[in-house]
Amino acid sequence: MGGGDHAETGAEDTWTVAGRTFRSRLIIGTGKYKDYATNARALEASGAEIVTVAVRRVNLSDPSQPMLADFIDPKKVTYLPNTAGCFTGEDAVRTLRLAREAGGWNLVKLEVLSDPKHLYPDMEETLRAAKLLLKEGFEVMVYCSDDPVYAKKLEDAGCCAIMPLGAPIGSGLGIQNKVNIRLIIEQAQVPVLVDAGVGTASDAAVAMELGCDAVLMNTAIAEAKDPIRMARAMKHAVIAGREAYLAGRMPKKRYADPSSPLAGLI
Amino acid sequence: MGGGDHAETGAEDTWTVAGRTFRSRLIIGTGKYKDYATNARALEASGAEIVTVAVRRVNLSDPSQPMLADFIDPKKVTYLPNTAGCFTGEDAVRTLRLAREAGGWNLVKLEVLSDPKHLYPDMEETLRAAKLLLKEGFEVMVYCSDDPVYAKKLEDAGCCAIMPLGAPIGSGLGIQNKVNIRLIIEQAQVPVLVDAGVGTASDAAVAMELGCDAVLMNTAIAEAKDPIRMARAMKHAVIAGREAYLAGRMPKKRYADPSSPLAGLI
Amino acid sequence: MGGGDHAETGAEDTWTVAGRTFRSRLIIGTGKYKDYATNARALEASGAEIVTVAVRRVNLSDPSQPMLADFIDPKKVTYLPNTAGCFTGEDAVRTLRLAREAGGWNLVKLEVLSDPKHLYPDMEETLRAAKLLLKEGFEVMVYCSDDPVYAKKLEDAGCCAIMPLGAPIGSGLGIQNKVNIRLIIEQAQVPVLVDAGVGTASDAAVAMELGCDAVLMNTAIAEAKDPIRMARAMKHAVIAGREAYLAGRMPKKRYADPSSPLAGLI
Amino acid sequence: MGGGDHAETGAEDTWTVAGRTFRSRLIIGTGKYKDYATNARALEASGAEIVTVAVRRVNLSDPSQPMLADFIDPKKVTYLPNTAGCFTGEDAVRTLRLAREAGGWNLVKLEVLSDPKHLYPDMEETLRAAKLLLKEGFEVMVYCSDDPVYAKKLEDAGCCAIMPLGAPIGSGLGIQNKVNIRLIIEQAQVPVLVDAGVGTASDAAVAMELGCDAVLMNTAIAEAKDPIRMARAMKHAVIAGREAYLAGRMPKKRYADPSSPLAGLI
Repeated sequence: MGGGDHAETGAEDTWTVAGRTFRSRLIIGTGKYKDYATNARALEASGAEIVTVAVRRVNLSDPSQPMLADFIDPKKVTYLPNTAGCFTGEDAVRTLRLAREAGGWNLVKLEVLSDPKHLYPDMEETLRAAKLLLKEGFEVMVYCSDDPVYAKKLEDAGCCAIMPLGAPIGSGLGIQNKVNIRLIIEQAQVPVLVDAGVGTASDAAVAMELGCDAVLMNTAIAEAKDPIRMARAMKHAVIAGREAYLAGRMPKKRYADPSSPLAGLI
Repeated sequence: MGGGDHAETGAEDTWTVAGRTFRSRLIIGTGKYKDYATNARALEASGAEIVTVAVRRVNLSDPSQPMLADFIDPKKVTYLPNTAGCFTGEDAVRTLRLAREAGGWNLVKLEVLSDPKHLYPDMEETLRAAKLLLKEGFEVMVYCSDDPVYAKKLEDAGCCAIMPLGAPIGSGLGIQNKVNIRLIIEQAQVPVLVDAGVGTASDAAVAMELGCDAVLMNTAIAEAKDPIRMARAMKHAVIAGREAYLAGRMPKKRYADPSSPLAGLI
Repeated sequence: MGGGDHAETGAEDTWTVAGRTFRSRLIIGTGKYKDYATNARALEASGAEIVTVAVRRVNLSDPSQPMLADFIDPKKVTYLPNTAGCFTGEDAVRTLRLAREAGGWNLVKLEVLSDPKHLYPDMEETLRAAKLLLKEGFEVMVYCSDDPVYAKKLEDAGCCAIMPLGAPIGSGLGIQNKVNIRLIIEQAQVPVLVDAGVGTASDAAVAMELGCDAVLMNTAIAEAKDPIRMARAMKHAVIAGREAYLAGRMPKKRYADPSSPLAGLI
Repeated sequence: MGGGDHAETGAEDTWTVAGRTFRSRLIIGTGKYKDYATNARALEASGAEIVTVAVRRVNLSDPSQPMLADFIDPKKVTYLPNTAGCFTGEDAVRTLRLAREAGGWNLVKLEVLSDPKHLYPDMEETLRAAKLLLKEGFEVMVYCSDDPVYAKKLEDAGCCAIMPLGAPIGSGLGIQNKVNIRLIIEQAQVPVLVDAGVGTASDAAVAMELGCDAVLMNTAIAEAKDPIRMARAMKHAVIAGREAYLAGRMPKKRYADPSSPLAGLI
């Protein structure tokens, strides 16, 4: 892998959010892993340059316990603090202020969830929270439903990336509504990332083939039987889907079309 | 990529057909490309170690015309002669005998097609042809329908690889019947390869996630807008699907499951 | 059809919205038909007891032009005025006030659309409009996205039926996100109707099998080659899906299970 | 239902196999029911005019035990004897000869199954058996794989109906390969029936929308929680799918298309 691979078609394929440029289009989580060491090894296998961190859950400050930063170096990997566990805009603001003070993190992922049954975002409160955070000077990547109307409102409010769900968090069901993801991508001027719902490698490839800029996942890697191997699978899946998107797939046909033209042979 | 990648989980992941061992699980075709040079570049980008060659169509012997072997070196890449354009067992035997004389090729791909509308194999004639070829000492990889009963007959007859179609040749529709592919894989003692039907990267990943040993494709690469880039996409897709299969995917769930356990937080 | 059919399993299968009880679980539209006469014939073939009427478009008051009421008798068929063409809550209130004055219609369908590309509802404005209408004493059936969080908000606000879209209006793509429709049904205490997206009979059956109380459609009938025949197809599809839901389908199995147990025979 | 329903569009919609004409497009089985009485009630609810009977299993001759004919009158309902439990052509011929002697049944359903894991037909033996039966003067409706090539061979051999499987018998998975069913229908001059794989009402509707002449099912009804109600669901599903097929569905669109044209309103 690596840069050489892209040399063939010229410029390297990167994406940029809030002025930061990344080569990897995979973002992974830091929940559900057996331990931080496994998390760190999965990160390495995945090639991801960003990890999301639930600042209300992950140990960022208690030196008597294992600390994430001892395993995943925040100087080398971009920490993307998220608001898991926050159910109001005020909660989210308070949590991310702490994160900013602690680590200087200004680029954040907002998620304001609702019912534990589906863990879908509460879009009304999410939009309100996004506005609060933007006013405080945060760069807000926002977890949202796959509703193109709300995706537009979030972008218009100033969010720097739109992160629609593919399926319920932790369900592994794959992207349920490709029509909506496509509509969101078509209208967006900022990066669009599928966040939640990926279960296996082909799901990630599908997300990228739809034209997403990147994919975020946690459970699909953390709860695979072999998380390290699945992390590597996802690295390739995201590249595969991205390259296929850029390559421009063949049209689908209702009937066969011979690989070996038979004219003159029979 | 390469061996180092697999070092983490120990032995390198390879597959073996008729006593030959390969690292790449992607086989590409030599039809429909603009020219042999493009074909050769796609091959390189794909990482494939085997190409299929329609011996009745590809120029293997006329030195006044461009010859495939000048672009793709048969000493470095395994040529897999196929019987495209043959509609009877006798035709197939005759064609592959010529190939064996010309290039010493003993490992062959049998395909006995029927109606041009769908180009599905005629399974009755395919089985008969396979027996003829096996009697002549060929190692027969066989293109077949996704019928598990016939797949078993072909294996019992001595074929060294079973190659069920995913969808009509050149249709790009993706794998239509995952149930059948799975059933064929579960029963087979020889390698199973999906051959025909792949349209984009995620289709190839799906094939590998089902447990196929490899994937063969032609049109998906040759007729992509950028065949070289799609070849690279497919390289990654096949690795992604294979690694995901080996990793063991998370179970699908009907409801959400939080990445960041919220207990004690709320 | 009719009551006799249900006599076998006892009580007739009906559904109730805002205190009104219906036997048919199909609601059809009054747009896109060639003329009111065709619309009326489709209605009869469909067995529907409710029609939606875009009060800003359908001629309800100009006696010099053909009038819908001359073809579909509002004394026999429930008119459900809708707010097509309204883009704010105030617009919707104004429009439905006129409808109430004109026809005494209190049971209404609220739709506040957004971008013409997808015609998805603007959920923020929809919720605001619903509250305005409820305050004015309307019984509000509400067209909405398939977001379970907003569906709950609408129900909590007092809407008497939740009408999530299956796919974009007029697209005929069928239900895109069965997971969401199921989640909405599981949580709802009021009727849930799939509204928009049905393209053919099986789509309507799927909606009912998920547990919807009814289905609303317009284009699938109006733009079929033979609208009358498609109306009849939809009548049966809705019954089929409903009965299958009530009957409780067989479990899906990964392998075969013989219809004719073979024990003792072979 | 009944004839009146079709009067609207003129001639009644019927189908004909081996010179016999039927109005119902649903054929049901006689296996897996709790008892013959339930089977008979399901038959009545389904509206089916044909039942398949495994002559090696169903009691057609022992008067000391309950007999199928006491519950389902062979004078009113067409018995279609099948060869369940036969694994060779000779077996099938022997079994159906007995059936012909016992009940005069000349119209038969041939099924020659293979591995109990999937119960797929052995197509090689099925074709051989079909030829044997045709030589003996039977009218042969034939259970087969969804391979269009073999479907054509069976038709060319003289079979009077082609009955491809939708999914493994008793699996309830629904039609796996719509491409193949469509290809079989497009090429056939005799009736095509999906046989096996239907799990719920929408599956049956899909089969009919593809253009099948009829659908055969057993487990979907017999193993529903309420078989009688499911039988009724299937009656409607088959009519719905058939009528939708005849009506000609609307085209699918990638974007929305307003039901209520908004021109001049805004």
